[in-house]
Amino acid sequence: MMIKTEHALLLLIFSVLLSPLLLLSLAYEVPYPKTEAERCLERCYKAETEFSGLLEYADKCQRKYEGGIKEGRGGEEKQRGNPYYFHAESLQSRFRTQEGHVRVLERFSEKSELLAGIDNFRLAMLEANPNTFVVPHHCKGTISLVRQKKESYNLVRGSVVCVPAGTTVYLVNQDNNEKLNIVKLMQSVNAPGQFKEYFAGGGTNPEPYYTVFSDDILERVLNTPRDELPRLFGQQKKGMIMKATKEQLRGLSRHVSSPGATSHDSNAPFNLLNQRPRYSNEHGQFFEASPEEFKQLQTMDLYVAFSDMDKGSIMAPHYNSRATTVVVVVEGHARIEMGCPHLSQESQGQRREQRTEQEGYYQKISSHLSPGDVFIIPAGHPFTIVASENEKLRTVGFGIHAWNNQRSFLAGRDNIVQQLEKEAKEMSFNVPAEQVEKVFSRQRESFYLGGTQQWQRREEGRGHPLTSIFDFPGFF
Amino acid sequence: MMIKTEHALLLLIFSVLLSPLLLLSLAYEVPYPKTEAERCLERCYKAETEFSGLLEYADKCQRKYEGGIKEGRGGEEKQRGNPYYFHAESLQSRFRTQEGHVRVLERFSEKSELLAGIDNFRLAMLEANPNTFVVPHHCKGTISLVRQKKESYNLVRGSVVCVPAGTTVYLVNQDNNEKLNIVKLMQSVNAPGQFKEYFAGGGTNPEPYYTVFSDDILERVLNTPRDELPRLFGQQKKGMIMKATKEQLRGLSRHVSSPGATSHDSNAPFNLLNQRPRYSNEHGQFFEASPEEFKQLQTMDLYVAFSDMDKGSIMAPHYNSRATTVVVVVEGHARIEMGCPHLSQESQGQRREQRTEQEGYYQKISSHLSPGDVFIIPAGHPFTIVASENEKLRTVGFGIHAWNNQRSFLAGRDNIVQQLEKEAKEMSFNVPAEQVEKVFSRQRESFYLGGTQQWQRREEGRGHPLTSIFDFPGFF
Amino acid sequence: MMIKTEHALLLLIFSVLLSPLLLLSLAYEVPYPKTEAERCLERCYKAETEFSGLLEYADKCQRKYEGGIKEGRGGEEKQRGNPYYFHAESLQSRFRTQEGHVRVLERFSEKSELLAGIDNFRLAMLEANPNTFVVPHHCKGTISLVRQKKESYNLVRGSVVCVPAGTTVYLVNQDNNEKLNIVKLMQSVNAPGQFKEYFAGGGTNPEPYYTVFSDDILERVLNTPRDELPRLFGQQKKGMIMKATKEQLRGLSRHVSSPGATSHDSNAPFNLLNQRPRYSNEHGQFFEASPEEFKQLQTMDLYVAFSDMDKGSIMAPHYNSRATTVVVVVEGHARIEMGCPHLSQESQGQRREQRTEQEGYYQKISSHLSPGDVFIIPAGHPFTIVASENEKLRTVGFGIHAWNNQRSFLAGRDNIVQQLEKEAKEMSFNVPAEQVEKVFSRQRESFYLGGTQQWQRREEGRGHPLTSIFDFPGFF
Repeated sequence: MMIKTEHALLLLIFSVLLSPLLLLSLAYEVPYPKTEAERCLERCYKAETEFSGLLEYADKCQRKYEGGIKEGRGGEEKQRGNPYYFHAESLQSRFRTQEGHVRVLERFSEKSELLAGIDNFRLAMLEANPNTFVVPHHCKGTISLVRQKKESYNLVRGSVVCVPAGTTVYLVNQDNNEKLNIVKLMQSVNAPGQFKEYFAGGGTNPEPYYTVFSDDILERVLNTPRDELPRLFGQQKKGMIMKATKEQLRGLSRHVSSPGATSHDSNAPFNLLNQRPRYSNEHGQFFEASPEEFKQLQTMDLYVAFSDMDKGSIMAPHYNSRATTVVVVVEGHARIEMGCPHLSQESQGQRREQRTEQEGYYQKISSHLSPGDVFIIPAGHPFTIVASENEKLRTVGFGIHAWNNQRSFLAGRDNIVQQLEKEAKEMSFNVPAEQVEKVFSRQRESFYLGGTQQWQRREEGRGHPLTSIFDFPGFF
Repeated sequence: MMIKTEHALLLLIFSVLLSPLLLLSLAYEVPYPKTEAERCLERCYKAETEFSGLLEYADKCQRKYEGGIKEGRGGEEKQRGNPYYFHAESLQSRFRTQEGHVRVLERFSEKSELLAGIDNFRLAMLEANPNTFVVPHHCKGTISLVRQKKESYNLVRGSVVCVPAGTTVYLVNQDNNEKLNIVKLMQSVNAPGQFKEYFAGGGTNPEPYYTVFSDDILERVLNTPRDELPRLFGQQKKGMIMKATKEQLRGLSRHVSSPGATSHDSNAPFNLLNQRPRYSNEHGQFFEASPEEFKQLQTMDLYVAFSDMDKGSIMAPHYNSRATTVVVVVEGHARIEMGCPHLSQESQGQRREQRTEQEGYYQKISSHLSPGDVFIIPAGHPFTIVASENEKLRTVGFGIHAWNNQRSFLAGRDNIVQQLEKEAKEMSFNVPAEQVEKVFSRQRESFYLGGTQQWQRREEGRGHPLTSIFDFPGFF
Repeated sequence: MMIKTEHALLLLIFSVLLSPLLLLSLAYEVPYPKTEAERCLERCYKAETEFSGLLEYADKCQRKYEGGIKEGRGGEEKQRGNPYYFHAESLQSRFRTQEGHVRVLERFSEKSELLAGIDNFRLAMLEANPNTFVVPHHCKGTISLVRQKKESYNLVRGSVVCVPAGTTVYLVNQDNNEKLNIVKLMQSVNAPGQFKEYFAGGGTNPEPYYTVFSDDILERVLNTPRDELPRLFGQQKKGMIMKATKEQLRGLSRHVSSPGATSHDSNAPFNLLNQRPRYSNEHGQFFEASPEEFKQLQTMDLYVAFSDMDKGSIMAPHYNSRATTVVVVVEGHARIEMGCPHLSQESQGQRREQRTEQEGYYQKISSHLSPGDVFIIPAGHPFTIVASENEKLRTVGFGIHAWNNQRSFLAGRDNIVQQLEKEAKEMSFNVPAEQVEKVFSRQRESFYLGGTQQWQRREEGRGHPLTSIFDFPGFF
């Protein structure tokens, strides 16, 4: 059963973290876009930098490979000038070896000044190859943290680990079948502007530490003649992620100190998916770990969330009061719609002088999300997510500035309109209050709303030229 | 008595606040500058951008309309290059309707890099028209906050409300006579560089929330056929501030949950003017709510102050240890004098190389303040304010970084010079200590100092060519 | 014994601090570089701005005056492009009088964007001349803080004083022989970009406060006729640091309220050198006051450290998890070696596209340190310091972002490699674990490592062309 012993384990060795980070272990793979679509897109995107007219074409490429019907949509979606959407493509690969790689999202502020407020955070994803043999009941991976004393923890799907800055960390993927996928959010302590470099520097094995020091120093601090040093340093040439032998795997897993704690007040890792869901109904489940409940999340002031939505269901339109959320699609496809007051001004500079007479208004942002895509939802921006009709939608979210964050819902049970006095309803909508009440009390579900398809079916018969893309079954 | 029922109330509807803010309700009107002076100034200011020589002329315009005698002063005041003074003019009007408007001060850092430290704060003023009928004993206005549950509070003169980010808020001016004037200080949580946009986006009614979402989504989340939606959305065309009917007013005020709490440790609004004055004597009263006393002020780390000075009195020269203060003139005219070490260097770059031999010194900043003007007093900068001889002076102040702030007085009882040892006095002034003590112990009042006019009367007989402008009665 | 009474004391008068700061009193002089070497260097440095090729020559100058042998080294050290090293020279002199001066380090971000994270801190050094007579058992100096009530403290070697922003402070050097040397770290509260100006403005006597105010205001607030004012203001022309008479000295020291407290939880000054050393052995002592232990250091989130190393000993290579350290050489010469991941990328931009295949690696930074030099060690950067063979090495360190900082050692007892599992050692170095263990367990000392010279002696016989400079005895 244990044939290829030299391939039995995968070891990610030795990052010194220069910033605290949060790891979220995922069983669901965050796939790297497939090669043909990639190459087509690359051609288009490259052209885009020179001829913005070609963007249309790039959009078509994207659609061509994501689903066949999209081409007819007529450009309802405006991806250009959308600073909140990051294609899975846009994560840069670093430290790629045969056995895995780390991909890092560009600095938020490089995308847009609107994201400057979260610029001391940085998103990365790690993928480490599986072993080829099935060892049943084994957990997903192991993480070892070396600080004052070494700690090792098992990583399973949903594990959340907060790693303080300055910790030496290494990971083992003990699974023989599945890749280990980890989404990381890093926070810069000292040099907000230098994240790219931090990350690069952090991902090294211990050798480079030592090779920066002169031989005369090394021989004194290690109490070892300098001609013995080359026998020790310079031997590890396999890169950051490498195969481990079966014996090495066994040796490493012997020391795991904790089965993955679930305690709320220790600093040990916890499993997000073992928590009671914050929202749950027949259409989905929303797991959230807040800094109020988890001491581990307080230093970085984050919440971590996992959303598991049924095919075709909708997340009720809402906004977060304080938190800016970084959403990563783990599985499935979705459409996200968001209102943004900032963009409406940016793109309409010429109309600014008329703004004094005019209500402030929201610009519609709409993006199609595929696995590996990243979307930023700034605080106060109302948004909704619609899952594809064909697949479940699974997303991971990191909420930055999460302390005391609250969600206000625009639809579903407990929506804010229903809380208004009769008179406020009347004046806000300039229609009789009863009419407002009738509409806003109809939807009885909350958070995840089912697709009650009766209205759509009615629509189909009419053949509106601008019907929503959701009218086409199987769009995603 | 209740004739024009459709004009009985004024309603400001529905801002979602993207940043926490602090409202200070004012009975005293913050007037918008009168039109003729305005136009004259505008001409000059426009010219200024092209010909800085014309500034002299602009100064004259300002004086011409503020008081007749000033032209002869010979330019003692240097408004150019003064980054701390904001003419009432410089607040930009937004969301102006027939019934009121919101005016926003430009970003501090746009005025000067010296103000970059308070750039995540933004000042705004709201003015809402009165009803034309007197309903005696009614309070000034109502504020409703919708977060987890709706709260409504009465606003009277001096009410201070801290509104957390993400709260949906609307205001009602129930008064039939007086405008509702509110000074707001907003703090950015997520995007320091995007305040202008934040504000614009915040000032909307609920409709724009919904109109960003596609019809297919709306019909599903509201469980309402899409052809019914246009009957609900798009009807409200009156803008952000609108008249309310008598019935609407009555309905809205029925739900006010609190008469304006004065408790120190709840999050309810409090009335600044109901506090015991921090400083008080026959020349004025100074009300201050500090973050140490009011839990509501701790998140934004602010103090709020209201100063009510008698005609012709002087605020003792002093500086704040930590707080940078944003002062808004509510009523009356004043002169402010401040010492600034930064400007002295900026304006005298050429002398910088000699600075090693020379003491650091303060540059005098002097501004005339009129209602609606804003003045920034950075931490550590000694300043004094002199009220006009003809009117009371009322100002509102927001102290940013207020925690543990202390005032050090340069004159009046308890001035810092009197605390020095005899020898330190002697060496600091290089005159016998007795002489220092004699001068610094003469003024027995503190904070608000009366204008003991005896010295001035003596002066008048002599006809100094450079006598202070205060020698001219009725200067203001 | 007390002859020159008019020279008996030195008084630094009246800084209003616009930012909190931390003073560390030093008995060890931080010398200003000697004049001949200075002039030679200045010539070179001036040329450098025009012809970077001349830098080589400047380097030679520096070596010529620091030790005779260095010229032959062949440029192993790369000072160009090293943003972490500040020559003592680069501190600008301000407020220089006959009796002393203040020197201020340039803004960190002006040196490099890599230092932007500590840009709201600023380093300064104060030097005040001694009296010429020995008064035995007298303490080094006195510091008086005027805030709510005046406090005076004695300053001795190792005294640490935290001065809140807005405090009026003056210092007395009561010593008749020794200069008073103080290293200050200032933190900006309000205007990060305006530190230079802050400092300049802070260093003034009370006169400039008053002279910014108009005569009419002064006569009213001081209740004094304006023609008496010139007799009080404008008399002090001696500058910021001046001689005091014996009587003034006696008068001033009468009020010292505290002998220099050592309590951990009050806000009183404490003496760093009275603490139990954090690390101590025959090769040196390391004193550290952390924000966890000293409440005074919590506002600025600093640690203060004093390192006293024996000739020729080595500080074990290690890194700080969170703190970025500002090191000032007080006495002796040293070599510092540090690994930096940031520079390696900056200087090799053209290789960036290959980085995905390549491990992130550290660039070696190496600097020679002389008294007065400043070196910045960012968090997470491994470094080591080697003391000259001829002198003790004494350094002062300020750790910025110190809360919860931890040191991880790369050599010596308790090094992190020894904490790895056998298998992790094996894979990290790609040699048998026993070989790793053998080397990393040999050095039994920790923190300060002695120079066990046996290996070096062996080397000398062989005549390696690139032997370390430490092989030349008496290099420093």
